[in-house]
Amino acid sequence: MVQGQLLEIFASKSAKEINSKRHLIDVDNFSPDEIKTITQTAKLCLQWMDGKHAPMTMFAANIVGNLFFENSTRTRSSFELAATNLGARVLNLDIDKSSVAKGETLEDTAFTLISMGVNALVIRHSQDKIQSDLSRILPAEVSVLNAGDGVTAHPTQALLDFFTMSQIAGDLTDKKIVIVGDIKHSRVARSNILLLKKMGAKVEACGPTKLMPGADELNKMGVTVQEDLNAAIADADFIMALRIQKERLQSDMQLSFEDFQKKYQINHVRLEQSKSKAKILHPGPVNRGVELTDELADDAKLSLIRTQVRNGVAVRMAMMALLFSRRPC
Amino acid sequence: MVQGQLLEIFASKSAKEINSKRHLIDVDNFSPDEIKTITQTAKLCLQWMDGKHAPMTMFAANIVGNLFFENSTRTRSSFELAATNLGARVLNLDIDKSSVAKGETLEDTAFTLISMGVNALVIRHSQDKIQSDLSRILPAEVSVLNAGDGVTAHPTQALLDFFTMSQIAGDLTDKKIVIVGDIKHSRVARSNILLLKKMGAKVEACGPTKLMPGADELNKMGVTVQEDLNAAIADADFIMALRIQKERLQSDMQLSFEDFQKKYQINHVRLEQSKSKAKILHPGPVNRGVELTDELADDAKLSLIRTQVRNGVAVRMAMMALLFSRRPC
Amino acid sequence: MVQGQLLEIFASKSAKEINSKRHLIDVDNFSPDEIKTITQTAKLCLQWMDGKHAPMTMFAANIVGNLFFENSTRTRSSFELAATNLGARVLNLDIDKSSVAKGETLEDTAFTLISMGVNALVIRHSQDKIQSDLSRILPAEVSVLNAGDGVTAHPTQALLDFFTMSQIAGDLTDKKIVIVGDIKHSRVARSNILLLKKMGAKVEACGPTKLMPGADELNKMGVTVQEDLNAAIADADFIMALRIQKERLQSDMQLSFEDFQKKYQINHVRLEQSKSKAKILHPGPVNRGVELTDELADDAKLSLIRTQVRNGVAVRMAMMALLFSRRPC
Repeated sequence: MVQGQLLEIFASKSAKEINSKRHLIDVDNFSPDEIKTITQTAKLCLQWMDGKHAPMTMFAANIVGNLFFENSTRTRSSFELAATNLGARVLNLDIDKSSVAKGETLEDTAFTLISMGVNALVIRHSQDKIQSDLSRILPAEVSVLNAGDGVTAHPTQALLDFFTMSQIAGDLTDKKIVIVGDIKHSRVARSNILLLKKMGAKVEACGPTKLMPGADELNKMGVTVQEDLNAAIADADFIMALRIQKERLQSDMQLSFEDFQKKYQINHVRLEQSKSKAKILHPGPVNRGVELTDELADDAKLSLIRTQVRNGVAVRMAMMALLFSRRPC
Repeated sequence: MVQGQLLEIFASKSAKEINSKRHLIDVDNFSPDEIKTITQTAKLCLQWMDGKHAPMTMFAANIVGNLFFENSTRTRSSFELAATNLGARVLNLDIDKSSVAKGETLEDTAFTLISMGVNALVIRHSQDKIQSDLSRILPAEVSVLNAGDGVTAHPTQALLDFFTMSQIAGDLTDKKIVIVGDIKHSRVARSNILLLKKMGAKVEACGPTKLMPGADELNKMGVTVQEDLNAAIADADFIMALRIQKERLQSDMQLSFEDFQKKYQINHVRLEQSKSKAKILHPGPVNRGVELTDELADDAKLSLIRTQVRNGVAVRMAMMALLFSRRPC
Repeated sequence: MVQGQLLEIFASKSAKEINSKRHLIDVDNFSPDEIKTITQTAKLCLQWMDGKHAPMTMFAANIVGNLFFENSTRTRSSFELAATNLGARVLNLDIDKSSVAKGETLEDTAFTLISMGVNALVIRHSQDKIQSDLSRILPAEVSVLNAGDGVTAHPTQALLDFFTMSQIAGDLTDKKIVIVGDIKHSRVARSNILLLKKMGAKVEACGPTKLMPGADELNKMGVTVQEDLNAAIADADFIMALRIQKERLQSDMQLSFEDFQKKYQINHVRLEQSKSKAKILHPGPVNRGVELTDELADDAKLSLIRTQVRNGVAVRMAMMALLFSRRPC
């Protein structure tokens, strides 16, 4: 039944637009209407997941290559399950052992996989915009899905966060989202800001000054800055805590986890002090006791973390289904 | 046909009991009747394997996460094939690269996978009882299968050994099994003793004194000790040789492989001297020339090693099928 | 439809012969007629790949174990996709973590996998002829496929190269193939020479003297040597550049990549100078700028590299299908 409903979505103008773009490089490639189509598709996929079915058969001709040049079992597994839920096959490349270690370029690796029959490449890479560059030279039947590049973009994370917030708040127009932590080095923050602004939300940033993008860039993105976390969250609908890297805090700022925690940790005390009724998001994995207390991370009423993870699979299923709709079985 | 017969077993009171326990933590969670139901199911699964079929379809909605925090290609592969024989999907977590390396707790990893749709977690871990602790906090639709924890338990190994011996001897009541080697640090020995005593067998232990549990513990488990290996095996029905770790011998006992071999190796000479007619089991991989001679390990009449490996897949299929029977397609 | 045509091929005398040989150890195990049957089967498999289908169902009872004791994501992935295209399951052994690391022999690993239900072992190993030795002791229902052993053989590479050249030139009788580079240490060269000579082609070798087999061996194989690369390629139909290993050049010959490149690089200038109209093959991954220039490697008219990769999957599907035809679902 879900497969039938997917076919209905595929027939829409907006779905055809998404499909014709062939790739998922960043969220700014899509119009608000297209974002809504992605969300609508993700909703169907989530419904399918809740139904505990055998894998779909409709996309069984697709082969997804997972190329993770940075470690992330979490995101890799989410893409793998999304693909196999659709009935597609997944080829996990073990980058340590691969030809890349022998000095092969990403381009050569990509063309090798494509020659073998792979028609979607899920790529995470430390180099900014490498998926974008690659996508321009690939044959028409191949899709690139960006699973994170440098500090630039992590579009499926932004889509799953948007989907998660929409489930609770419906339309996000004029809703306020506070992003807390190292925004400067976060592709999660960057893609989220792009998407949230596009969809009419208000975004406020809060974190150590040295871990903030410049005022110009924030302005351009339409993000306000509030140094006082309590003030920032008082009227927030959602708080998005980012994972902080110990090494970065120490080397860039001579800050310890303890310093960060005092000033930027989200916890029940702070929420009560500021009378915040916000729900909490975190892209995971959480440094427990740092960005969030254990109690808040596990608070079934306030924390959306597990919902985010589940929605991640649904959103990735949706993106692949929309891109694969050119090539049903 | 096998799938139909499985459904018949699932309808039995004993199978429903097993299913209601949701997890496989150790063998003492099951009554003798339930153990017999597991064995009966394993027999069907073995019959299915011998028939060389395409994977079953009945369990295609299940997703198994393989979490091995200690290396074991052998056991991991056995669980993987068991799951895919049933038609379930397997997600192999690469622990080295996973979020665990970033300091994530097992609990967080488990909830992440469950949120993604995984409904069975196969876990091997060096920490005792960690699967038991985890199983108590998971949602009702999730099963934990213990693939070995610390020195505590390795229930599927005990079940496959029991199944293997039962194929030959039928009812094991009053049969004598001699376990040889480092019993103190062996979860294989511990689970086997629990299961064998529960099923009415006699268990005798033989090994270096420092690698024996205390007399109290042995008493409590109902195990006799015999220091003279030849005397121990003379009237044994089965000899179970354990894998010995060189490092442990050296550090704990200043014993070399050669010392161990002289006193505790099972070989044709020893079997003849003691007029033993016992069959030989070993959980693998064998240190050839140490616990067993090459000749004995490969003796098609006496060695049950390959049968154990094959039965391992059947027993793991059986356990998963019984736990998954809540969630057929 | 392709599955039906495969069944027709399987019924031929030549296919039955191939099947009865059970293993793919090297190309000299097959007669010219049998090689043609493999090529004909590969052609069907390629047609199937082009059609973008869901995996076949006919071979779904087969389980392939991938045992790569030397790293090669490229060849491993090719075998994996070939097997799953056929609908077979693949068990990838992670050799670093496997029992092999605990000192288990290849024989024990093989029998363990076979006991678990694996019926085809794809093996790459640094030790010469190890697959051949192993194949002699395995049960009748198990196939070994050599994915490269030492400097001896790489039969699927030779078969895919032959298939690729035949697509262009038809019958290779009296066609001239020049192999360039380190022929002495190349299993790719050795298997290619065996196959090409068997099929009536002329083979000429060109490379640093110290990286050439002895004159006796070359004679025996029916290979001529030409030290002047331009002369060698002037009337060649195909040039097969081999991957050169920096370490070997330096340790064996005190040669740098630059020295090699000056004398043995294939590039447009050289092709024009010698008026060669040859097409270029390379087993990959290419050291770009060393064996081939970027421009030539990517020249859609002259370079067959991507075709080779695609044909590699087709040839491996063909070999497995022919060996599995004993055991259709």
